[in-house]
Amino acid sequence: MKSLRPLVRAAALASVSKHIDHFSRFSPSPLSMKHFLDFGSVKACERTSFKFLRQELPVRLCNIMKEVSLLPDQLLSTPSLQLLQTCYTQSLMEILEFLDKNPEHQEVLESFVEVLENVRNRHNEVVPTMAQGVIEYRQASGRRDPVTDHNLQYFLDRFYTSRISIRMLINQHILVFNGNSNPAHPNTIGCIDFMCNVTEVVQGKNEGTVKCHTPTTSALDHFLLFLNVSPSLLANNTREPIQIPYVPSHLFYMLFELFKNAMRATIETHEASRLLPPIKVMVVVGEEDLSIKMSDRGGGVPFRKTESLFRYMYSTAPRASMEDQHRTPLAGFGYGLPISRLYARYFQGDLNLYSMEGYGTDAVLRLKTLSTASIERLPVFNQTALRHYKLSLEADDWCVPSKEPLDLAIHRMVK
Amino acid sequence: MKSLRPLVRAAALASVSKHIDHFSRFSPSPLSMKHFLDFGSVKACERTSFKFLRQELPVRLCNIMKEVSLLPDQLLSTPSLQLLQTCYTQSLMEILEFLDKNPEHQEVLESFVEVLENVRNRHNEVVPTMAQGVIEYRQASGRRDPVTDHNLQYFLDRFYTSRISIRMLINQHILVFNGNSNPAHPNTIGCIDFMCNVTEVVQGKNEGTVKCHTPTTSALDHFLLFLNVSPSLLANNTREPIQIPYVPSHLFYMLFELFKNAMRATIETHEASRLLPPIKVMVVVGEEDLSIKMSDRGGGVPFRKTESLFRYMYSTAPRASMEDQHRTPLAGFGYGLPISRLYARYFQGDLNLYSMEGYGTDAVLRLKTLSTASIERLPVFNQTALRHYKLSLEADDWCVPSKEPLDLAIHRMVK
Repeated sequence: MKSLRPLVRAAALASVSKHIDHFSRFSPSPLSMKHFLDFGSVKACERTSFKFLRQELPVRLCNIMKEVSLLPDQLLSTPSLQLLQTCYTQSLMEILEFLDKNPEHQEVLESFVEVLENVRNRHNEVVPTMAQGVIEYRQASGRRDPVTDHNLQYFLDRFYTSRISIRMLINQHILVFNGNSNPAHPNTIGCIDFMCNVTEVVQGKNEGTVKCHTPTTSALDHFLLFLNVSPSLLANNTREPIQIPYVPSHLFYMLFELFKNAMRATIETHEASRLLPPIKVMVVVGEEDLSIKMSDRGGGVPFRKTESLFRYMYSTAPRASMEDQHRTPLAGFGYGLPISRLYARYFQGDLNLYSMEGYGTDAVLRLKTLSTASIERLPVFNQTALRHYKLSLEADDWCVPSKEPLDLAIHRMVK
Repeated sequence: MKSLRPLVRAAALASVSKHIDHFSRFSPSPLSMKHFLDFGSVKACERTSFKFLRQELPVRLCNIMKEVSLLPDQLLSTPSLQLLQTCYTQSLMEILEFLDKNPEHQEVLESFVEVLENVRNRHNEVVPTMAQGVIEYRQASGRRDPVTDHNLQYFLDRFYTSRISIRMLINQHILVFNGNSNPAHPNTIGCIDFMCNVTEVVQGKNEGTVKCHTPTTSALDHFLLFLNVSPSLLANNTREPIQIPYVPSHLFYMLFELFKNAMRATIETHEASRLLPPIKVMVVVGEEDLSIKMSDRGGGVPFRKTESLFRYMYSTAPRASMEDQHRTPLAGFGYGLPISRLYARYFQGDLNLYSMEGYGTDAVLRLKTLSTASIERLPVFNQTALRHYKLSLEADDWCVPSKEPLDLAIHRMVK
């Protein structure tokens, strides 16, 4: 049998696009936080999880690979995108090999965990690699028209969400079934804390057991020390801890990003003053939403620019080097805010900025209170998605004011 | 000549759809606040204004009449819509009669003002009439599907914006050239206050010289007295008045609506308590935006429902009677919030609600600081608009979670 493997692999590689076509015809199956928790409960069964993942991971991979294939040729031909596609194909093929394996054999389950670990490590650098590809494409094509920008924004939101979801599935399987119980965090099931103390995460006391982007433990502390700022916390009820089932590392990533932006704005606006106005955080839990509002007095931004803060590549901060092995959310490709919003939306929450130009900004993060409502929000490749990539510039259905002074006596041209 | 008039009118009426086709081929010409102010300055010339309006009013009327004609037949055939169409056609024909009149004749200018007054009065009831038509349509068709709702929301936003803009043009011409100077408000040019004191309007001291929807002078006072609430005002600089060129009646309409909602929420949430938490208002002026934030502690709404507050017919408050002659914004068809947002957007501002469920709501109104940036936002009938009315339900490009419990062992169906 062993001597046949290279042949099988070669045949499989040749038929890769057939596989992508096949698996992209399935819709991904979104899991709720409750599903994830049930996985880790006494009912948890590694075989069931294995059988689900060997089908679901190819479905999620292939749905997004379809969309990758719709990107402009000039982007697909960059070295970064070539690398990414190889990476995705290789991972797909490795997982597909388990389709005909017997779940009753312990060695099959063990080698599946090994493969998942390889896949996860292989995809560690996907975010900066894709970012690099987009930079290369923009430099080569010299184009930054609104349609290309819109389509890329649409794609990147979906691509990164898909990646978050795939890593979530992989991490949960590895952590739950590889016997990595975490005595420091007895409430965790995989990377989920089913009693995630939101107030503690706000205060930087819990960064989660699985790092999203390897922020160093002390990054926030250093930042706070450096600034000599301690954000004051106002909660509607400080006596009882505010707890929801959530992924602490996701929450930490989002709050860290918001802190960083609030602090940067505060310092830049008040650099002449020795006394910095506090950054206030308010946590409120309702029947449906858990809301966290962070308010700074960092001068705000004009309303017109708010949405652009969520655009990939908007940041003017110095670009992260690909060689920097200790990247933190601080290092930044200008991706902090858009990725934070994807984390929030991934479990049906949202992240919004409400700025008052001349005063400051309120950032409001909303998460679902109930584990049954926190359901994965996953991109699905279908006709609607396809149409987005074929979007061309169409006329605005509201008047675009002319830059020219208006001569009231002469009427403007026919449409 | 006189005996020919009925014939001319009959011929004109027959060719009304030809006129609509002709004038809807022109794009409306958006005016900036600065244009409006220049109209009333020493440079103001009634003949220029006349020549502009006899072309621009038909353009705006016909652009929106085209969209009215695209509404579902069942809606168009309601008595309310029949009435509206007659009303619009009559006004169009009356204005078109001035196309070949000589602007040098004083009696032409005078009869133009008379016609504008007739048109304005004829259209007084357009908002409730259209609302009534939509109610009749919904009752007759029994349909409330998402696509119809979406298309109606799209249409009503455009229809009411068009109406706001047409009334603005008409009011300015009448007030500026009919010698109605307003000694009580020396800063006004027509219905614009070029030094509109925002703080005063927030405090209910200035409701504007031209009422949008005839709110009675004391409506707000009564409301405040009834509630025994006096909203506290926090401004970034209370010593200097915050002034921008704006239409005080528009501003009052929007703030009154926000006050009303904030107060209703506050009372309903704290009915057991004798002490109501204050409603705080903050006004900030930046280089680009003037922002007004009104914060209540009225319990908030779930994030999921925020956008629906801007839907026409969302309100569950008792419906206004068409017979009520003293309608105020309070009487409500549930149109207060959506119409307020249209007023804000009409001059390139916006109105947003940021709620924290379990605590309260921040409403943020943003207006443009500069008179050159406050430019009318007008609907234009074109291919993009046409496509909206032909919109059909398409598949979501993000997974819609199943209501059924997920069986992880069995994979879901093919798309």
